[in-house]
Formats: sequence, C-alpha cells, structure tokens
Amino acid sequence: MYDAVVVGGGIVGSSVGYHLAREGVETLLVDRRDAGRATSAGAGIVSPGTSSRTADDDWFAFATDAGDYYPGLVDRLESDGVSDTSYGRVGLIAAAVDDDEIVPYEEATARIEARRDELPEIEAIDPATATDRVPELAEPQRAFHVPDAARVNGRTFARALREAGRNHGLETAERDVTRIRTRDRPGGRDPQVTGVETADGSGIDADRVVIAGGAWSSAFGGDLGIGIPVEPKRGQIVHLDLPDAETGSWPILEGFRHHYIVPWPDGRLVAGATREAGSGFDPRVTAGGLREVLEEALRVAPGLDDATVIEHRVGLRPVCADGVPVLGPVPGVEGAHLATGHGATGLTLGPYSGRVVADRILDGKSIPDAVSASRFADGSG
Amino acid sequence: MYDAVVVGGGIVGSSVGYHLAREGVETLLVDRRDAGRATSAGAGIVSPGTSSRTADDDWFAFATDAGDYYPGLVDRLESDGVSDTSYGRVGLIAAAVDDDEIVPYEEATARIEARRDELPEIEAIDPATATDRVPELAEPQRAFHVPDAARVNGRTFARALREAGRNHGLETAERDVTRIRTRDRPGGRDPQVTGVETADGSGIDADRVVIAGGAWSSAFGGDLGIGIPVEPKRGQIVHLDLPDAETGSWPILEGFRHHYIVPWPDGRLVAGATREAGSGFDPRVTAGGLREVLEEALRVAPGLDDATVIEHRVGLRPVCADGVPVLGPVPGVEGAHLATGHGATGLTLGPYSGRVVADRILDGKSIPDAVSASRFADGSG
Amino acid sequence: MYDAVVVGGGIVGSSVGYHLAREGVETLLVDRRDAGRATSAGAGIVSPGTSSRTADDDWFAFATDAGDYYPGLVDRLESDGVSDTSYGRVGLIAAAVDDDEIVPYEEATARIEARRDELPEIEAIDPATATDRVPELAEPQRAFHVPDAARVNGRTFARALREAGRNHGLETAERDVTRIRTRDRPGGRDPQVTGVETADGSGIDADRVVIAGGAWSSAFGGDLGIGIPVEPKRGQIVHLDLPDAETGSWPILEGFRHHYIVPWPDGRLVAGATREAGSGFDPRVTAGGLREVLEEALRVAPGLDDATVIEHRVGLRPVCADGVPVLGPVPGVEGAHLATGHGATGLTLGPYSGRVVADRILDGKSIPDAVSASRFADGSG
Amino acid sequence: MYDAVVVGGGIVGSSVGYHLAREGVETLLVDRRDAGRATSAGAGIVSPGTSSRTADDDWFAFATDAGDYYPGLVDRLESDGVSDTSYGRVGLIAAAVDDDEIVPYEEATARIEARRDELPEIEAIDPATATDRVPELAEPQRAFHVPDAARVNGRTFARALREAGRNHGLETAERDVTRIRTRDRPGGRDPQVTGVETADGSGIDADRVVIAGGAWSSAFGGDLGIGIPVEPKRGQIVHLDLPDAETGSWPILEGFRHHYIVPWPDGRLVAGATREAGSGFDPRVTAGGLREVLEEALRVAPGLDDATVIEHRVGLRPVCADGVPVLGPVPGVEGAHLATGHGATGLTLGPYSGRVVADRILDGKSIPDAVSASRFADGSG
Repeated sequence: MYDAVVVGGGIVGSSVGYHLAREGVETLLVDRRDAGRATSAGAGIVSPGTSSRTADDDWFAFATDAGDYYPGLVDRLESDGVSDTSYGRVGLIAAAVDDDEIVPYEEATARIEARRDELPEIEAIDPATATDRVPELAEPQRAFHVPDAARVNGRTFARALREAGRNHGLETAERDVTRIRTRDRPGGRDPQVTGVETADGSGIDADRVVIAGGAWSSAFGGDLGIGIPVEPKRGQIVHLDLPDAETGSWPILEGFRHHYIVPWPDGRLVAGATREAGSGFDPRVTAGGLREVLEEALRVAPGLDDATVIEHRVGLRPVCADGVPVLGPVPGVEGAHLATGHGATGLTLGPYSGRVVADRILDGKSIPDAVSASRFADGSG
Repeated sequence: MYDAVVVGGGIVGSSVGYHLAREGVETLLVDRRDAGRATSAGAGIVSPGTSSRTADDDWFAFATDAGDYYPGLVDRLESDGVSDTSYGRVGLIAAAVDDDEIVPYEEATARIEARRDELPEIEAIDPATATDRVPELAEPQRAFHVPDAARVNGRTFARALREAGRNHGLETAERDVTRIRTRDRPGGRDPQVTGVETADGSGIDADRVVIAGGAWSSAFGGDLGIGIPVEPKRGQIVHLDLPDAETGSWPILEGFRHHYIVPWPDGRLVAGATREAGSGFDPRVTAGGLREVLEEALRVAPGLDDATVIEHRVGLRPVCADGVPVLGPVPGVEGAHLATGHGATGLTLGPYSGRVVADRILDGKSIPDAVSASRFADGSG
Repeated sequence: MYDAVVVGGGIVGSSVGYHLAREGVETLLVDRRDAGRATSAGAGIVSPGTSSRTADDDWFAFATDAGDYYPGLVDRLESDGVSDTSYGRVGLIAAAVDDDEIVPYEEATARIEARRDELPEIEAIDPATATDRVPELAEPQRAFHVPDAARVNGRTFARALREAGRNHGLETAERDVTRIRTRDRPGGRDPQVTGVETADGSGIDADRVVIAGGAWSSAFGGDLGIGIPVEPKRGQIVHLDLPDAETGSWPILEGFRHHYIVPWPDGRLVAGATREAGSGFDPRVTAGGLREVLEEALRVAPGLDDATVIEHRVGLRPVCADGVPVLGPVPGVEGAHLATGHGATGLTLGPYSGRVVADRILDGKSIPDAVSASRFADGSG
Repeated sequence: MYDAVVVGGGIVGSSVGYHLAREGVETLLVDRRDAGRATSAGAGIVSPGTSSRTADDDWFAFATDAGDYYPGLVDRLESDGVSDTSYGRVGLIAAAVDDDEIVPYEEATARIEARRDELPEIEAIDPATATDRVPELAEPQRAFHVPDAARVNGRTFARALREAGRNHGLETAERDVTRIRTRDRPGGRDPQVTGVETADGSGIDADRVVIAGGAWSSAFGGDLGIGIPVEPKRGQIVHLDLPDAETGSWPILEGFRHHYIVPWPDGRLVAGATREAGSGFDPRVTAGGLREVLEEALRVAPGLDDATVIEHRVGLRPVCADGVPVLGPVPGVEGAHLATGHGATGLTLGPYSGRVVADRILDGKSIPDAVSASRFADGSG
C-alpha cells in the first residue's frame, strides 16, 4: 500500500515522484519505457521568457515561475547527492536571418520590452557579435541574446530527479500500468482511487494516482470517466557532431521559424524539431521531417554543412487540445491527478509542474487556473 | 460506410483484409505501425509439423492445415499480380548437438512417427550429411531433415497480401484506432458494432470490425465488455551477414532448445529468438537477450563466429493466456471479430488464420474450437 | 602459387575473378571489407544510354557495350547455379520538373536522337503518364521513358559473381594486401610481379595481380613505380520505406540534377547521391549531404514526404583524374593489371570491365584506348 | 611552412600537438577520421598499476609515470580554458568470481605487493563490500579495490587536448596524408623530412613530421625506408544502459579475464573488449566477438542482464610486434618521429606519450629505451 503511485517516469512524473518523496510521501514511480518518449528525445531549452513569448498572461507567469525554479532545484538535487543534472546556463542567440523573420523578431522584442520587469536581461546584439560568438552562424539581419537561457538533457535530468528521490525513499519500478482502479462510495460521494492494475493482471494499492504518462495518458480517461484530451505530436530531431568546434562555449541558437540548435560540450549539436500534429504513436524518422530539420539548421548555421549526422531521435510530445498542460486533481474521482500535456515545453516546465502537482497533494495548494485539470470538469468523456 | 474494418496490418490482419476483399467485401485495413510489431521482426519458419510438435490433436490439425495452405496462397497471390512474397521451400535441419538435446530429439521423432500419415516426409540424416550441407554447423549427435519446410519474411508477405488485396479493392490507411464503437439494440439483442474511432476523434463507420492488433489487441476489450487475454512476449532476434557463404541454398537450422537460424539468399542469416513473458510493450535489445541468441546460434553453428552482426530486431508477439490463437466472433457483440494471439506461430499460421476469420464473416463457416474466441464467452472481463 | 590474385572484392574485382575462373585460370580473390566500399552503397542503375549521355564516342561505345553485356551475364550466372542476382529491368522515367531542367532535358533528348540507332528505345511521355505510373512523382514539365533500363544491387551482384566463380574453382579469402611484390629481371626487361604481401607479413605467390581496390587502389602505385590517379569521391545515399506503395512495379526515377530514386519490391526506395570530390576516405553522413539527397528526392517525388528514413549508406567511389576507368596492364611491370576508377558508373560498367580485363589476361585482347591504363604510361609517379 | 606536422588526431597525436603548441612550436595537426579509430572506441581505464601488472620494470615505470601525469594535465587543460575532459577518479574493483581467476588474482596482488612503494594504495576487500558497492556484481571469491583508478572518454580527452592546443596556436585540419616527403642530403647525411603530401596531391611543408596514425601508421614505412611493425588488433565494445542505477558513483569493474566495465554517470556502462589479432582494418561487430563481450560482462555483473544494449563500438588498436609503444625519432631520417603502437593502453598512456615525444622534439630529451623507436634501427624494411 503506497500513499501515491506515479504513472510515468518522464521528466514530469520523475519530478512529481521526487517532490512527494522529499516530503515523506510513500511513493512508487512506475514506468514502461515507451519508444518515442518525449523526455528522452527533447533538446531542453530553458528560456521561458522567449519560448513562451506568444502566451497569455497567466500562462506566461507560470512559465516564468518554471524557469526561475530550475536553478534552485539543481542546487537542491546536488545537496541530495546528485551532481550530474546536465543543466547549464549557456545563453541563447535568436537570429533573424531571412526577410520573413524580421516581423517575428520585432514582435518578440516588443513583447519582451513590454515585460522587461519580469524577464531576464535580453539585449539586441549586432550581427558581427553573433557570428564572432559562433562563426558557423549565418550573418543575421537582427539578433538578440538571452544570457540567462539554459540547456538541459531531459533524460539526464529526469534520471537525476529519480535518483535524488530514491535518496528520500522514492521507489521506482518498470511496470506496465493498464488501468486505474477505483471503488464506488456511498452517499453520492465521488468514487475513490484504490490503485492501479498492471499488464500481468496484478494490482498495486495506493490512495492516490498521478497520471504523468505523456502522450499515452489519454488511455486512462475511460477508467476515470473523463476524456483526457492529450494527443501525440511528433518531433524529429537530429544530432550532429562537429569534432573540432568549441561547442562547450556556444550559446543555444534559434531562428524565428520555431527551430533550434542546442550545443553540448563534446561537439554534439542537437537540431530540432518538427511539430507534427496527427502523427499518432509512430516514432518514425520521415523523409520530409528530416529534410525540414536539416534545412532549418543549415539555414541558420550554414557552417554546420560538413558536420556529421550521428543520430536521429523522435519524441511524441503530449499536446493538450488547448495547448496548455493539464495539472492537478481529476474532477469527479477522489485521489486521481493529472500531470501531462506539456507539448514542446515539457523540459522547460516539467520540473516545476511536478512540484506544483506534488504541492497540491501535500498541502492542497491550488493549481493556477490556466493549467488546471479542472478546466475539463464538464469533460469530453 | 465499409462492410468491414480490419484493425492491424500485421500478417494476420493483412490476410483477413485480403481474403475479404477478394470476395468483394468493402474492406478498410487500418494500421498504426507500432514499434515492436511481431510480423516485422519474425523469422518465419513454415514447418507446422515440427514447430507444433507438442500440441494437442485439434491444434495440430489446425497447424497442419495452415502449413498446407501456404503454397496455394502463394500461387494465388502471384495470379493476383504480386510475385514477391519471399516464401521459399528450403527445408530444415534439426540437429541435436549437446547431450540434453537427445531426449527432446527422440520425443520429436516419436511424435512425428506417430503422425507419419499426416506429416510431410521427415527423415533422420547422419551427422556428416548435415555438416556437408552446412559446414558452419556443429557436428550433431542426431539430426533430421524436413524437406518441405519453408521460410517467409513476415513483412514482405504481409505487404504482398495487402498489395494483392488492393488489386481486389481493399483500401488501406495509416490510422490510429482508439476505440471500437457499438450501439445498444432493443429487445435484449446483443449490441452491434458501428465502426471505430481514431486518435483525431473522427469515426469510421462499418458493420464489422476485425481486431488483428497483435499484442496491442487487449486495449479494445473494455469497449467490447470482455477481457482479451493477450499479452506481449518479447522476442529478440539478430541478423548476421556471411558474405561468401552460399546461404541461398542453406536449409533452416534448429537445435532442440527453441532457437533457430533462418537463411536468406544474400548472405543474411536470422538467428532467434528469446521468449520473454512479462516483457511489456518494450521492444528493447537487452544484454541477456542478445547473449542468449548469440550463444544458441553459435552453439548450433559455430562456423558463424566471424559473421558480421548487422541488425537487431525485437518483436512483441501477442500471446494468449492459454497459448493458442483467438479467432472469430466476440461473444456478446454483433459484428466484432478477433484475429490475434498467435504468439511465436504468427508467420506460420497467420495467413491461414486470416482466411478462417474471413470465411466466418463471408459464409458463417465455423471456427475450430481449439482456436475459437468463443472459448472466452464467460470472459475474464 | 596462383595464376592470378585479384585484390578487391567489389563488383569489378568479383567480375575479374569470375571471368578468369570460368576459363580455368587458378585465381584467388582477396578482399578486406573496407567501410565505405562503393559497391555496397551504390544504387545500381544500368542505363548507359542515358547515364553516359555527355560522354565522347569511344567512352559511349564502351558504356553501351557494358549495358548490353548484362542480360547475357545474368543468364550465364543462372546457368552457373546462381539465381539471385538482383538484376531487374524496370525501366526509367527521367522527369524535368523545374525550369532549370528544361535545357538539360532538351540536350539529353537531342543526344539520344542523334544516336537513335545504337540506343535502346527511349520515348517522350506526357506528364500525366508519368504521374499515373508513379503518383508520388511531381508533375513534370517534360519526361521520357527508357523501357530497357535496369536496376541492380551492387552487393548482391558482386556476391553472385563470386559464388558463380567458386563453382568454377575461384578461391576467395579475406586478407589485407599491403604490397604488390615484384622482382627485377636481367636484360633490361620490365620487372615481373611475383605476388602480394598481406598485413601479417606473409606472402601469396602469383604470376599476375589485378588491382581492383576501388578508391584504395592508389596505395599500390608506389610498389609499381607509377601514380594511380584514383581518389575517393563520396556518395551519400538514403534508403526510404514506403510500406504500402507498389514499388515493385515502379520505374527508376531521375530528375535532371544528377540524382535518382531506385525502387525495390519490398517498399524500399534508394535515393542518391551526393558527388563529393575531396572527401577523403571518410564514409560519413553529413548534414549538408543528407539535406541535398532528401531535397532532391522530395523535389522530384514529393509524395515521398512521409516515407520512413530507414538507412543511410555512404560509398567512396574511385574516381580517376580524367573521369574514366583505368583498365588493363600497368605499363612497365609485367603481370600487373588495373581495374578501377569507375566513379559513379561502377555498377553500370563494372561487370563488363571485369570481363575486358580478364580477356586481356586470357587472350591478350586489346583494351579500348579510352579506358586503358596505358594512358598513364608516362605516369605521375 | 610549419615547424611540425602531426599526422593523426587520436589521443596520442592530439597530445603531441597540444604539447608542441604549448611551447610555441608552429604545429599543424591533420586527421582523416578513419572508421575504427581506437581512441573513439576505447573505454579509458587509467590504472597503470593494475593494467600493466605483467610488464617488465622499465615498461612498468613508464606506465606509472603516465598514470601520474594525468591529474596535472587535467588541471593544466582547465587552466587552458577546457573544462570538459571527462577524466574522473572513480576507483576500480577487480573481482575474482570463478575458480580459474584465483591464480591470476593471487599473482596480481603479489606483484602489487612487491611494488607497494611505487603504487597507489590498493587493498583487498571482502565480497560483501564489493556487492554492497555494486549490487549488480556477482559475489566474488576475492576482490581488491584501487581507489586512485580513473576513467576517461578517449574521444572527449583527445578533443580537449586539441581545443586547449588551439588556444596556444595549434592548427588543426581534416586532410588525408598519403606520403611523407623527404629530401636527400649531401655528405652522407641522413635524408631530411620536408613535409607531407595529401590525397589531392598538394603538399604541406614542415621540418618535422610526427606519425601518430594508430593502426594505419605502417603505411608510411615505405616512405621512410623502415618497417613500422604496427598492426590493427580489433576490440569490440558494447554500451549498455541501466536507467535507474546510480552508475555515476560506481567504480570501474574488472574480472581476471582481461575484460572490464566502465561506468558513466548517465546510466551508460561500457563493456569490453575483445583482443583480436589479425583482424585487419575491418571494424566489424562479429557474432563471436559480441557474444564474448556480453558473456564476460554478465559473468562479472549478472545484474546487467536486463540492461539495454544501446551501441556497439569497434576500435582497431595499433599493436606493435613486441607489444610496446614506438616513440621518438625514426632512425635514418632527420625530422621523422613516431608516436604509435599503444595497443590496448592508448588511453592510459597516450597523453604522456605525447608529452614524451614533444619533449624529445623540443629539448632533445631522451626517450626511455623500452618504448623508443630506435629499437627498430636495423628495421625490417
């Protein structure tokens, strides 16, 4: 009998598990290693000020809080005995190279200007400064620099959360959860979660279940009498190797067509990503997707032309119908919680979302409306 | 509005679709290309006399019929305009190399002897004959030869079935079916299938649905009010390359520890397979699994020591709780049919199973009891 | 003591070995499986009339003879007991899609017209005919069809040549030849080949050595006192999978920018290729190369956008300084022969080139000047 | 015109280049990225006291110096601005699991005892201590612990050396060197190096050339009139992933059958390696090699049975005929130096070897006899 079972060991589920265990909740984190997990593929740009620049105010506030939460969490993990989190503040250069990018550039800087108080320092830089920093970059027409932006490897960070969690008593297991179990209650009260059932037919008893199953989360809607409007949105990513560039000191590179290049110290550059709605659970590399990723990477950084293609990755991001995460109690079922729907922002927001969901369980703290699962109360199921 | 929707484009679903379309049934075959599909990984030994040597009489009869069905089907596909089926009768040598294999060898030959009338010709051969045929083979203590055994590439054969089906009007589409739709009917009659729902929320109308979803089939049990007791059982397989051996004229090689080596003309040898119950939907290559496959292949054929490892494949075979396929009408739901649960015998039996299920739909022909879905009438759900 | 040692088991060396053995020459074929071998990567279009359309007359005649040689060779291999050669006449559609391709198209058809007597039937087709044949094709502005064009898998064909050769007594071995041995002779006569030396320091005695080492051939120039002006020219290739297209009946597809798509029956499409001079011995997949191959494939056949990327291959084609193969006796060394330098035409010409070199050894037949090694008599070494 | 050209960008060549550039020598490092480079595959155990336990005294002293050199070099690289070297002191547990390992264990401890003054602290530990540390380990019969042992990623360390070198003016280029150029000198003096020639026929002038070409180095022997008795010895390596083990705090694991497991923080475990003499330049993964590596890894650490196989690597180690590196001036040619032949010890010794060769060039310091190229003065060429 556990206090809580967390279903899903991606970055969100690992964060929920860590934060619950840290406060003494007897928690089991179960996971089934699906091919296509978004956390494992994702490139990990932590720059909510720029990533979320089109969002509304509530959502923007949540995203900003999530970015601010990272450095303290990294310190905390270190004090929990886990030093390798992969988090690194390397900055970000956003470059408008082609004519069609000028307007998006201007809009982005206007929005940033409007929120100058809340945002980390962001400053326009001239083209020569950008190409001095990264000679492989195309000479941009406009560019700005975000010194506080950080990169994170999703797989490493999720692992670090679980490892630190285990140091606080978190249990972790590889199990395939097929059903959420509930029991009816007399007196018109909502049914109560009693645990989960796994593929071998056995059960795990728990008072609370947190569904952090990424794109696969909607499969549990039927058990809970609601629709969980989350679907997979495929992202294809290419890893390049540039053996003699000093990529350890490179900033993250972005154009204004929703793509990016995330540098790592060992010559590895991660270029992404497609955003393919309707992809289904099909973690394939496609001719069109790979072309798109390579074209965008080489448009922004033509100096990568001779880089070696060393790996493809594909993630199935869990995207909610309204494009915003779904956090907190499932309306109508006592003890059921959701923590999914982060889409392309999972690595940016996930650790904080996990904290928010854990706080709700621990202290009854309210979930911000913009991301609350209660918005599906009259659900589609 | 289709007459029938077949869910799953593995070898079983493709066969159902082909056989329905051939008789003029307006059929849509939908598929979602799951990683780990058993059809794509499987090695394809068509030798039911030996593969099913421990089975009971009914099951044995079904398996024998399935093997007998192949050659005529291959001819029929050719007359439908599809020449590349990959099917080839190359024979099979079963070799008892180590002491622990003598008893299984003797048991197998006794069973074959007892059924000599029904079985293809199988004859004991002496060790030198075996190693003359394949010098890479270990000198066996005992060996027999099955001249009629054939090999088939599951992916190619399923594709050939779909292609021939399209020549008869079969429609095929990549869609992710998430639910079977039914409607209640008055007068105490069973509910009636009305179609399927796909991941994007849209529906496809049909009077009949055939669930041929392999290891993923059980997900539809809830929609139909039954338990579909099918689970994934992982099989890891290694592809080897032997550039200058004349593998095109090699027989299939088997020891008596449930492993095999299937040869292909271009120097490719397929060695398999683990049988991992409880693997979940996790198409991974593991250290232990890969070691097992390589050890067994090199024990039976030490001459493959220097062969190049060119590929790993992993299949999640759909295994029914009682080890036998589940074919035909779902009890209690009008228009719902199952065609799954073939475990390691999918490539051996699948094309015939598809025919049997199609015949049930077309003509109301009864399904053999041993494999009928009606055995779960008092279902576990 | 062998009559001949052939160094290199690509398509050219395998052909030399086969043709020598067929005539009773005691021949050893040695090979070292270099990563990046052009034969293994190449896509294999046998359409010399169109492939060599810019060539001069002599070279054109050689290429035409080479294409004509294939069908009889395939029959001969079959009578030698090797049925799987992969050769198939599927035809070729050359499509001018964009404006810049009109002029090359017109030039090509003019050249073909001028040689109508020698060439296989080639006919202009209208755009609708082309896209009817292959719906994935872009609607072309102009197109022609070459019914006689064939495809061949280089690895399979080379293997078939070796296998058939072994049936005639050809010996094959995996050895790393590091040096060609010669001995001086009195009386001002040219030095005489005595065999080869391998990496373990041992020697293999032979009266003749044929260097068919592809891009690696130049390493033997020093031993023979000449420069062998052959360098690697990298070609990157992408394999796509289109599971439900009837690719077995597709023609080869070409635009007029030096790229191609070769279809195979099992849904596999081979798209290539870059032509990278100065690549060195570096069989890498690069960001720019992969982008180029995908862009060209999708420009000519936009319907491949959703095809799965299943494999990358890289070949290091041996390119001679003057762009033409180098065949026959090495000037100044008795018993040394070259058979290399085929560049992108290795699979088209290689089997015939092997025949030509073997005939020179067997009967003293002269080598066409255009491709003769004697043109480097005053060599650069 | 350079002062020195270093041929080869593996760990040895990169170290030579770094150390020369650091002292102001105008140096060009050229490299051609051969598939199979040992530095890129190698697992990197820096524990010369145990690795070299069978060596003679001179060689042992050299190996000990090499191990001692690492920590200072890492500090120096950091002060040169390169922080990511991958070097980490994690310790090493050597475990005798099976009976046949007791004698090698006893011999190793006896040798260590005999050299207790020179060696880092090594201490016997009891089986429970070993399996407490790493629960995946088999319970050993005997075990000892080497607290000072470190791991290093060869590719990362070589890269760090080049990057730090560039901060001191080192130039690096991707070029394929095909020949060492020399000029004869009057007065009976030895010929003098004048530079190198690359595959495109152009030359690079330099007064000194350091051949650090790993297994490919022997190709230059002919140019220098000597035999360079270095051959490739293949090592196959498997990378495993253990997602929830705390591998960042694991020690290196070794049995007493020449295999090892090197842990990295992110769940990655590197298991190796075969030692295949006579492999040629053939970086293949073979059935027998892969089986050997997996069997040994699972024998010593059965708890890795379910680890995921994520990658194979193959290195072609340069092995000298007498098993010892070949460092320093080539007898008989002014300005030619060798730095190769490290076999399986390249990552252990390479950085120090590079220093030793650089010191010889800079200051004329003598090379220890045991590893000096002068031992081939009456060479085999």
